[in-house]
Amino acid sequence: MTDPQRADETDFAVALADAARTVDMVIDRLIPVPEGLEARVFEAMRYAALGPGKRLRPFLVLAGSRLFGVSRRSGLQAAAAVEMVHAYSLVHDDLPAMDNSDLRRGRPTCHKAFDDATAVLAGDGLLTLAFEGLAQPDTHGDPGVRCELIAALALAAGNQGMVGGQMIDLIAEHRPDLDIGAITRLQRLKTGALIAFSCEAGAILGKAPHEARQALRGYAHDLGLAFQIADDLLDVEGSPEKTGKPVGQDAAAGKATFVSILGIERARAHAELLVTQAVAHLDLFDRNAEPMRQAARFVVERRA
Amino acid sequence: MTDPQRADETDFAVALADAARTVDMVIDRLIPVPEGLEARVFEAMRYAALGPGKRLRPFLVLAGSRLFGVSRRSGLQAAAAVEMVHAYSLVHDDLPAMDNSDLRRGRPTCHKAFDDATAVLAGDGLLTLAFEGLAQPDTHGDPGVRCELIAALALAAGNQGMVGGQMIDLIAEHRPDLDIGAITRLQRLKTGALIAFSCEAGAILGKAPHEARQALRGYAHDLGLAFQIADDLLDVEGSPEKTGKPVGQDAAAGKATFVSILGIERARAHAELLVTQAVAHLDLFDRNAEPMRQAARFVVERRA
Repeated sequence: MTDPQRADETDFAVALADAARTVDMVIDRLIPVPEGLEARVFEAMRYAALGPGKRLRPFLVLAGSRLFGVSRRSGLQAAAAVEMVHAYSLVHDDLPAMDNSDLRRGRPTCHKAFDDATAVLAGDGLLTLAFEGLAQPDTHGDPGVRCELIAALALAAGNQGMVGGQMIDLIAEHRPDLDIGAITRLQRLKTGALIAFSCEAGAILGKAPHEARQALRGYAHDLGLAFQIADDLLDVEGSPEKTGKPVGQDAAAGKATFVSILGIERARAHAELLVTQAVAHLDLFDRNAEPMRQAARFVVERRA
Repeated sequence: MTDPQRADETDFAVALADAARTVDMVIDRLIPVPEGLEARVFEAMRYAALGPGKRLRPFLVLAGSRLFGVSRRSGLQAAAAVEMVHAYSLVHDDLPAMDNSDLRRGRPTCHKAFDDATAVLAGDGLLTLAFEGLAQPDTHGDPGVRCELIAALALAAGNQGMVGGQMIDLIAEHRPDLDIGAITRLQRLKTGALIAFSCEAGAILGKAPHEARQALRGYAHDLGLAFQIADDLLDVEGSPEKTGKPVGQDAAAGKATFVSILGIERARAHAELLVTQAVAHLDLFDRNAEPMRQAARFVVERRA
């Protein structure tokens, strides 16, 4: 272990796994299964939010929180909320009415493991629980901060963010004529907005100055796009064993992606440039931003 | 117009229509349609939240707000949030995966007017926007009050409230063996929790004393059950022209309801008793609670 790059990667993998374990404990406590018939939707929520996954968004929340001396408890509350919103979006996106996916992270999707109606409700429940959690005093002693966090998450997740992006994605599905500008905007809404919230949550919790927030916004913007390009590349180059879902689906659906427009080599070069840009935004932070720098590199180097 | 009962009914109808018009203006402003492809989900959200409807929940929020000197603006923010949550729940409940309803309030349901995927997203968008709206300073100057409102709405709408109730309802659909206790619990979660929030929102906004909140909770509990029994009666006795949806569906589905268990006469008597109880809870309030008393009577006398 004398290769510093390799040591960094190991540090990052350990930190990512640690964040995942901790945030899962918080989510686990937020969804205790009751006795009544409604238990089924609680089980489905747990299946969706506590299944395998990288937990990259919670990691970003915790890494961002560290920059501003935010308490671990506050960071974890926000991290759990983001992960529940992310999980809800996957459950609804996978529905037969939407992307109709049977497999996610190597397991049956929520509606396959339960049924369509339960999956709709589980998504609804997770989204609602995310806001309930953020509104609690545990999240931050200052309720003004909690409200700011709730408003920012709702904006990122709703019709002006993720929901709007998924709407565009559904319309764009059979339009291979979309240009790079349209694809960029689609992804900025669909995946970028929630990643951006994850990066900024710590700044909100820590009442960070404007300049720091701007820097994180820039980092998040570049990171989000790099993440999506990496996803598109995995759909072309990945293996179902590693990604836990079928590959080649975008091309089969005739869908415009960064890879279909730019080609593999240019798409990869673009993603790497974005990561360099993302890391440059962190220049005003010290060593404490190292986990965020590692996260940016991880995003383009991941194999799943 | 010398019959005081008739005059009351007219007053109430006017007040209900006025509340509906005003809350619709607030919702209209919250969902401006943008230029991009995502416009479709905004249109679907507007279709669902601004279509015909009684707007009973917003009325209850405004009536409750009046008891505690809450500003009209605050009351309207909370009223709009409740109506958006109610509208989202109808959109998702009507989906083919859930109740599979084609008609609602005399019009095609959201997924019929748009498509299933858009309806899922429109519901998601409305739910998210409800929390975004509540988190804004417009709702109340004290962010602690906004957080309390958000937490209470999330609890009423989520897996421990409405979402849990809908889960039970789906499971119970083909179980005519459910007893009155099970049906009462189902309805308390499915429709009662959001009605209860509507009744209590004004008390939260007005920082009302514990005793007043308890009284409103009692009122809301009885009102919610009376409302549901009236709904069950309309499914047996109503006309599709007036209710705007098919009738006789519960019986056709072999579903246990208050009417299937108690019979028409006893169900009606039970609803009337509940309304009397509901009104009695309001004894500690003065003339300002008159709209809430009228609302209780309206709930069992309505024909649609």
